[in-house]
Amino acid sequence: MPTILGQNQYGKAENRVVKITRDGATHHIKDLNVSVALSGDMDEVHYSGSNANVLPTDTTKNTVFAFAKEYGIESAEQFGIHLARHFVTSQEPIKTARIRIEEYAWERIATSDANSKFIGADEVNHSFVRKGQETRVTQVTYDGAKWEVVSGLKDLVVMNSTNSEFWGYVKDKYTTLQEAYDRILATQVSGRWRFNWTDDEQRMPNWEKSYEQVKKHMLQAFAETYSLSLQQTLYQMGSRIINNRSEIDEVRFSLPNKHHFLVDLEPFGLKNDNEVYYAADRPYGLIEATILRDGCEPKIPVDMTNL
Amino acid sequence: MPTILGQNQYGKAENRVVKITRDGATHHIKDLNVSVALSGDMDEVHYSGSNANVLPTDTTKNTVFAFAKEYGIESAEQFGIHLARHFVTSQEPIKTARIRIEEYAWERIATSDANSKFIGADEVNHSFVRKGQETRVTQVTYDGAKWEVVSGLKDLVVMNSTNSEFWGYVKDKYTTLQEAYDRILATQVSGRWRFNWTDDEQRMPNWEKSYEQVKKHMLQAFAETYSLSLQQTLYQMGSRIINNRSEIDEVRFSLPNKHHFLVDLEPFGLKNDNEVYYAADRPYGLIEATILRDGCEPKIPVDMTNL
Amino acid sequence: MPTILGQNQYGKAENRVVKITRDGATHHIKDLNVSVALSGDMDEVHYSGSNANVLPTDTTKNTVFAFAKEYGIESAEQFGIHLARHFVTSQEPIKTARIRIEEYAWERIATSDANSKFIGADEVNHSFVRKGQETRVTQVTYDGAKWEVVSGLKDLVVMNSTNSEFWGYVKDKYTTLQEAYDRILATQVSGRWRFNWTDDEQRMPNWEKSYEQVKKHMLQAFAETYSLSLQQTLYQMGSRIINNRSEIDEVRFSLPNKHHFLVDLEPFGLKNDNEVYYAADRPYGLIEATILRDGCEPKIPVDMTNL
Amino acid sequence: MPTILGQNQYGKAENRVVKITRDGATHHIKDLNVSVALSGDMDEVHYSGSNANVLPTDTTKNTVFAFAKEYGIESAEQFGIHLARHFVTSQEPIKTARIRIEEYAWERIATSDANSKFIGADEVNHSFVRKGQETRVTQVTYDGAKWEVVSGLKDLVVMNSTNSEFWGYVKDKYTTLQEAYDRILATQVSGRWRFNWTDDEQRMPNWEKSYEQVKKHMLQAFAETYSLSLQQTLYQMGSRIINNRSEIDEVRFSLPNKHHFLVDLEPFGLKNDNEVYYAADRPYGLIEATILRDGCEPKIPVDMTNL
Repeated sequence: MPTILGQNQYGKAENRVVKITRDGATHHIKDLNVSVALSGDMDEVHYSGSNANVLPTDTTKNTVFAFAKEYGIESAEQFGIHLARHFVTSQEPIKTARIRIEEYAWERIATSDANSKFIGADEVNHSFVRKGQETRVTQVTYDGAKWEVVSGLKDLVVMNSTNSEFWGYVKDKYTTLQEAYDRILATQVSGRWRFNWTDDEQRMPNWEKSYEQVKKHMLQAFAETYSLSLQQTLYQMGSRIINNRSEIDEVRFSLPNKHHFLVDLEPFGLKNDNEVYYAADRPYGLIEATILRDGCEPKIPVDMTNL
Repeated sequence: MPTILGQNQYGKAENRVVKITRDGATHHIKDLNVSVALSGDMDEVHYSGSNANVLPTDTTKNTVFAFAKEYGIESAEQFGIHLARHFVTSQEPIKTARIRIEEYAWERIATSDANSKFIGADEVNHSFVRKGQETRVTQVTYDGAKWEVVSGLKDLVVMNSTNSEFWGYVKDKYTTLQEAYDRILATQVSGRWRFNWTDDEQRMPNWEKSYEQVKKHMLQAFAETYSLSLQQTLYQMGSRIINNRSEIDEVRFSLPNKHHFLVDLEPFGLKNDNEVYYAADRPYGLIEATILRDGCEPKIPVDMTNL
Repeated sequence: MPTILGQNQYGKAENRVVKITRDGATHHIKDLNVSVALSGDMDEVHYSGSNANVLPTDTTKNTVFAFAKEYGIESAEQFGIHLARHFVTSQEPIKTARIRIEEYAWERIATSDANSKFIGADEVNHSFVRKGQETRVTQVTYDGAKWEVVSGLKDLVVMNSTNSEFWGYVKDKYTTLQEAYDRILATQVSGRWRFNWTDDEQRMPNWEKSYEQVKKHMLQAFAETYSLSLQQTLYQMGSRIINNRSEIDEVRFSLPNKHHFLVDLEPFGLKNDNEVYYAADRPYGLIEATILRDGCEPKIPVDMTNL
Repeated sequence: MPTILGQNQYGKAENRVVKITRDGATHHIKDLNVSVALSGDMDEVHYSGSNANVLPTDTTKNTVFAFAKEYGIESAEQFGIHLARHFVTSQEPIKTARIRIEEYAWERIATSDANSKFIGADEVNHSFVRKGQETRVTQVTYDGAKWEVVSGLKDLVVMNSTNSEFWGYVKDKYTTLQEAYDRILATQVSGRWRFNWTDDEQRMPNWEKSYEQVKKHMLQAFAETYSLSLQQTLYQMGSRIINNRSEIDEVRFSLPNKHHFLVDLEPFGLKNDNEVYYAADRPYGLIEATILRDGCEPKIPVDMTNL
């Protein structure tokens, strides 16, 4: 046979599970998009079409919904761990399971003062508005022995309207850019961070608290760095996370430089004193890097994917 | 000539203007997407290609950016009024101007406690994160005599996890739906509301306050209505706005019923007590209606567009 | 009651129905996205939540799929006519039905010469690749007496690499654009055309042939017009359709001017002789107009929507 | 320093370059979206913000446009090779360049018979319509010594309306799927193939012919495989490419199983004899695998990205 099979995986992607938990009249939401990818002894289905080792993708979908009932959804990470362990331990041909999850956040709708049937509470206990800011993501991988959990976020748009410069760069024959001593720095953050937890027996991180703290440190580093380049800001964001969160050993960011160009108003007899900008779509600078705890090996792929 | 020209309009669409206002060290952002559409004596450009009456779309773009400097951006509505008045009054062939604006909201990044150079303030005064929830929209139309302002929002996703029923409907030979006595009600709100302000000389509404109040009343009506149909909830949302905001005479909503179907867990020996739902994409119910102050004429088109 | 109900409609949107017709071993595909909107005596469901007049949106979905079997899908227009007639004539409270349909085209995969099991035919009779060019659309409206059929297309991207100029326009204080005597003209066509067929008893147009001919005339008018403005090209496209197709009385186009800017290569010692362009995203000129058969009334809304 | 820098890269993404080549009155288009990513001695810009080794992303953009003039665009691959070689050989700190390109295909508009000014030709020689089917992609990587070229396509939607089965799979307690002996098999192909060309001095493949042939073999394998699983079809598609194209050593596919579910028409007294299907969006099976020429090492990442 002149061709052979290499890495392969399969499963049901984008299972949209919503779990309502009722604490008396107060409801809680978990809103997830769960994708399953399984790999193992799957040569025959590729070579001959024999499905004897294949758990149907439809079954992996059913399992996601059933586990929402059986285990509840404490956090996206914990839910992914339940699923990954199940697939690897219950089906002999499956050697590795990778569960990817997107989570959408909701917040409660505030009560009206006058018209409400719910007077006494500040919020309506079963009414929600989707928060809309970033999308939280996680990826849990299990091979029967070790765990790898990489969490992160995407589509978080941030801007510093000052405290950013860009100068002192290489100039070649194709360089026309003017140096900037006060510019807008804006980006749409896509970040991933890898936990050093790998062993079932060890104490797990508090996934929910970890996420909130990582996001806080990342945003503060963005805001508080006086920036000479987006690379410098990126490194500050990553090192701030690792220095403050002992559960994390590696961070990778993909930061598009969302250019805001000063509009030339001189033809109209106006001075533009860093006031009026044109927000450009394409092209955009794209800055990507990994930051590691000293002594740790990188494991997050260069191309991070969104689900 | 066997064919004639009907309604026509032209202009530059999607001018992405960002305005930074500096109040000492504290910066303020207005982040808009502005689309200009002009109409008037434009037959010749269609029939013969003569551009003698045509102000270039490039010029309408320049005007948007220049006006951000000349007038500032107090609100999307006020900015649209400046632009519409300018085009109609400065160019004789232009009889009507319609300015559409999307606005993206930003909020400040909170200060860190320990690492901050900004200790003393609660927020970093030039650092922002995009709010991400809904997109605010407005459309200002001026014909040289009267104004029409229709504002609104889109992409605001809301959910009630209970207090929604659906039963007692018509059943024909194609009906298989089971009646529901406790279901999730979720929708992605697209709403438009028309102001009764039409005259330059009259006192204008407070556009910013109006938006905040309309959104509040709309959300509270959604949360506080015990719903027998999405139509009923829609009507409550609209009438609550009109009853509380004297500046508004007409509201139209387009509400996709974002179905959350209870998953059948019985094949797995599990009971689903309104806990685990599958969030479906397509198809979806789509409920659309206008609510009017009694005695007022409807003017918002049946098909509202986004920009 | 200080508020009243205005125009309202409801139904199931985006029903994705695929119909396979088997002509011996040769299969044919119709691939549609069907949206139903019904209106009539629906006050009570808005005011009180009574669903006594409401045919569920779920039933309208079932009807779409059942009719694909009962009537087949001869064309999108004919399928919409079957559906609209059914809803208006079978349910007393329903006074008007509007059916919107998107259609996706497929073409057959060519046979291989050597490896094929299908030698003898030029194409595999059950294997297809999605054509991908434009999306065909139609909207059928019926009020129990008269029909209105508006068909069209969207997302058809066309370009003339020469034979386009733009000069002789109005210049005001905000005008900086340079006149152009040889430019690229490119647009993403969104067009709608209204048939003069309104009566069930009359002979219907051949919907499939009409679409092919309209598209052909529209493309040829785009290609063959030496353009002094996009408005002129638009008018030629519309009048060519009406002059060649007696079944059509009105055409409306929405044509974004997809700007291709000549790149300034002089800083690099290079001459750009209309060779290298930058394709911009936003902002873009947006040119919209209606063309009418002389003596006919316009009925296509100024804002055409895409489903 | 407790944190260190790992893999990093930067450059201008999504440069939309359109090149018109004039062969007398006949024009030719190349329409590309080019993304540049550079890496090398870039520690200081991350640690201290010093840009002394940083060629601005703006310069990489200028280079893309200048090279379209200087070298022309013979093929996406050849254009990427020119760019990658330039960045690595002209700037000492840059050690590796990775150029990603999307290409959009255009075809000529056919001439009208009667109205044309272009009678005599079958096509208008400067008028084009975007083909719209798949997007062609390539990635060229150069480290100063060896080349790696991975080409591919995305968004090619294909369907077999018969000759597909799925049965004989594993059944566990969460399995409810019924076996299928005649189903629709549809997918949106994302494929990448790696060339074994690595050395500047060797004769390069004919990039344009290679693409056409790979696409042809891939489509024919899809059409001609009687499928017992999508995995089997995927493997046939990959091995057919490698067996027919000696310049390619590795192929990877990511194939979403675009489910078409038979609609249950029995409640309406109708029989659905594999005629009426519901095309579902989410969730979907996702089948991914690499096929290798025997003896070759895999180099295409498990997660292929689209630009």
